[in-house]
Amino acid sequence: MKLYSEMTVEELEQELKKIKEEYRHFQDLDLHLDMSRGKPCTEQLDLSMEMLDELNGEVDLRCEDGTDCRNYGVLDGIREAKELIGDMMENNPDNIIIYGNSSLNVMYDTVARAMTHGIMGNTPWCKLDRVKFLCPVPGYDRHFAITEYFGIEMIPVPMSSTGPDMDMVERLVSEDESIKGIWCVPKYSNPQGYSYSDETVRRFARLKPAAPDFRIFWDNAYGIHHLYDLDQDYLIEILAECKRVGNPDIVYKFASTSKITFPGSGIAAMATSLNNLEDIKKQLKVQTIGHDKVNQLRHVRFFGDIYGMTQHMRKHADIIRPKFEAVEKIFAEALDGTGAGSWTKPKGGYFISFDSMPGCAKKIVAKAKKAGVTLTGAGATWPYGIDPNDSNIRIAPTYPNLEDLQVAAKLFTVCVKMVTVQKLLEEKRTSAEV
Amino acid sequence: MKLYSEMTVEELEQELKKIKEEYRHFQDLDLHLDMSRGKPCTEQLDLSMEMLDELNGEVDLRCEDGTDCRNYGVLDGIREAKELIGDMMENNPDNIIIYGNSSLNVMYDTVARAMTHGIMGNTPWCKLDRVKFLCPVPGYDRHFAITEYFGIEMIPVPMSSTGPDMDMVERLVSEDESIKGIWCVPKYSNPQGYSYSDETVRRFARLKPAAPDFRIFWDNAYGIHHLYDLDQDYLIEILAECKRVGNPDIVYKFASTSKITFPGSGIAAMATSLNNLEDIKKQLKVQTIGHDKVNQLRHVRFFGDIYGMTQHMRKHADIIRPKFEAVEKIFAEALDGTGAGSWTKPKGGYFISFDSMPGCAKKIVAKAKKAGVTLTGAGATWPYGIDPNDSNIRIAPTYPNLEDLQVAAKLFTVCVKMVTVQKLLEEKRTSAEV
Repeated sequence: MKLYSEMTVEELEQELKKIKEEYRHFQDLDLHLDMSRGKPCTEQLDLSMEMLDELNGEVDLRCEDGTDCRNYGVLDGIREAKELIGDMMENNPDNIIIYGNSSLNVMYDTVARAMTHGIMGNTPWCKLDRVKFLCPVPGYDRHFAITEYFGIEMIPVPMSSTGPDMDMVERLVSEDESIKGIWCVPKYSNPQGYSYSDETVRRFARLKPAAPDFRIFWDNAYGIHHLYDLDQDYLIEILAECKRVGNPDIVYKFASTSKITFPGSGIAAMATSLNNLEDIKKQLKVQTIGHDKVNQLRHVRFFGDIYGMTQHMRKHADIIRPKFEAVEKIFAEALDGTGAGSWTKPKGGYFISFDSMPGCAKKIVAKAKKAGVTLTGAGATWPYGIDPNDSNIRIAPTYPNLEDLQVAAKLFTVCVKMVTVQKLLEEKRTSAEV
Repeated sequence: MKLYSEMTVEELEQELKKIKEEYRHFQDLDLHLDMSRGKPCTEQLDLSMEMLDELNGEVDLRCEDGTDCRNYGVLDGIREAKELIGDMMENNPDNIIIYGNSSLNVMYDTVARAMTHGIMGNTPWCKLDRVKFLCPVPGYDRHFAITEYFGIEMIPVPMSSTGPDMDMVERLVSEDESIKGIWCVPKYSNPQGYSYSDETVRRFARLKPAAPDFRIFWDNAYGIHHLYDLDQDYLIEILAECKRVGNPDIVYKFASTSKITFPGSGIAAMATSLNNLEDIKKQLKVQTIGHDKVNQLRHVRFFGDIYGMTQHMRKHADIIRPKFEAVEKIFAEALDGTGAGSWTKPKGGYFISFDSMPGCAKKIVAKAKKAGVTLTGAGATWPYGIDPNDSNIRIAPTYPNLEDLQVAAKLFTVCVKMVTVQKLLEEKRTSAEV
């Protein structure tokens, strides 16, 4: 295959004609496919159905310590849930709060609390003229939506396969006191599937921010969401590393079982230092009498322990691994050698990140939509929804079935080729006119 | 029985001697009883165990509209939950958001949002110099804790058996723009068990507050929590009344199934005007992808409809009615004619409110504690935990079993008598010295 950029106008026109035929073929299929969000598919949800059998009308809903999970109380989670989630997060159960059904809500709440009450005695952010967050890009749109909602200025920091540009992170946080946080998805990142290198994590733990209330928002959403059994990314545990280097309070770590059991009906958790926990509990005890302990118990009884959870995650992997591999194969077959884009090959998580030639992403997404395939909006992976290169597209391969996914992925490559060729043709014609 | 206040010093001394003997008898029992919180008892929790059988590994977890409750989505609650809770709250399902496991959390969140973002375009409360709330007293300590946490100044408004002093409420809200809200438990109020009269509700709906962002926080926690099948309090539905008088946006109404199914594992809801809902959803969509739909479905399948829920509430009443009646009987037997205190006789809800002679409540609670019975702290029913009369004590009869409750109630009357007599003796001796 010849690089599109090296083709003549005639060759490009020839190619475009072929591509348009392909596109029309897909239009004829009257597709209605959704690759927009990182949602588990039905087969994945079915894996957790037996969890519902764990608690029935006959079982004892008391914890090991005698707590009746059906009644009020236990602000920060039942002991056995802290132990299970502690193993999942690789943290001491004593450093953990078990929350409700959504880690996103916990993150929102963490920012909201900092706005109104400040962090560990520091000025509430709402009393400051400017509050800024660093946002590794491309990143997770719902993170950015939270900081945008609170009027927090977002500064993009480029991602690479080893994590955010740490030179930039170190420089910015050390010189600007108004930078109060950074959004991180450190393992199998959303959308690229990159995992932070050992050096990156160590440099995060060693940050010396100008702001004493700077916090790393460490959303380890895909901590155990591997696609392969042996070829897995490994992430240095951040709390332990921060503690080792005398920086124990700098990180809030989040996780949930949303993509382990049922999204929206799982349990979420935060792990952080005892100082931070004390600070947080001052709010928590005002905010609620406690989270859903029955659901905590349900999860604990279902998994038993981290081995049970790991076995469960293998079943997830068996369902979604072929989907990731299918997309990568189709992308490679259609696009290798064209220069029309590049994409990541993650070993876990929920996304593949695609980068088109600059200025093409919006048009590609629009073309796909027109043929019946909904993708995550172009720009969504950037703060304020503005991708300055208009090149990044998040691909979510888990939800559709394999057959639909293959159709959608092929259509996607057709859209990529069409928009790329049209752009190159336009450029060549314009420069020919000049 | 002679009124304590009319007894001579000798008579009081004689009475005190008798009371002290009774008290010692209770001390010998080595009691460990808790009447501090409005918690359902085990038998009540058992009523909902069959709810856990509704969803098992074999059932279809899809809603009537096809939504798979196991996956992400549906921000404001599944349709059938809105319908069930709509019937429970007497509101149109379209005016309802179904939340997570705690209405307290929804109230917290509502105040927090007003702090950071304001209400319907008005200035965020955190940008104002002063924000005040009216607090009918005695009232619910956890309400007061929320406003205290946000630095909101609390103004006590006296309660009577018809509701808050509406002359005072009308005057204050019409002349002070910094008054932004009022906490109400309009039916079977916490702690008195009073229900607002028709006139009170109508006057609430007709309030003309100086602040455009004034809201009534209408915590209808005990809306269907009757003790009797026919002799029930009836509350005019506030949203409908507000709409009728052209004041549709003035109220946020809260409820939950905490004391219907499992506290902490139920579902909470807010009902409010479409304008308020639109305002709230701007936040909600940033804060979460959705609440626990599986638990919503579990509740819907268990109750079926409002008739099922009403039948269920009768079973609750059968368990706790004898407890209320036992306490009232013991109080009457021990205290009638002494003038040592008065108490309410609610027809629903979770509490009895006791008023001692001024200056006695703290000592009564301390004496009970010393003999092994934990009561809600004296003062808890007032903002900042300060009851200026030191007279109100909240009695929570539901949690202990009937036998324990009777012992605790008797001990309570002994403590009341002892503290009252000691106080009168002290007063008489002091005035004799003068």
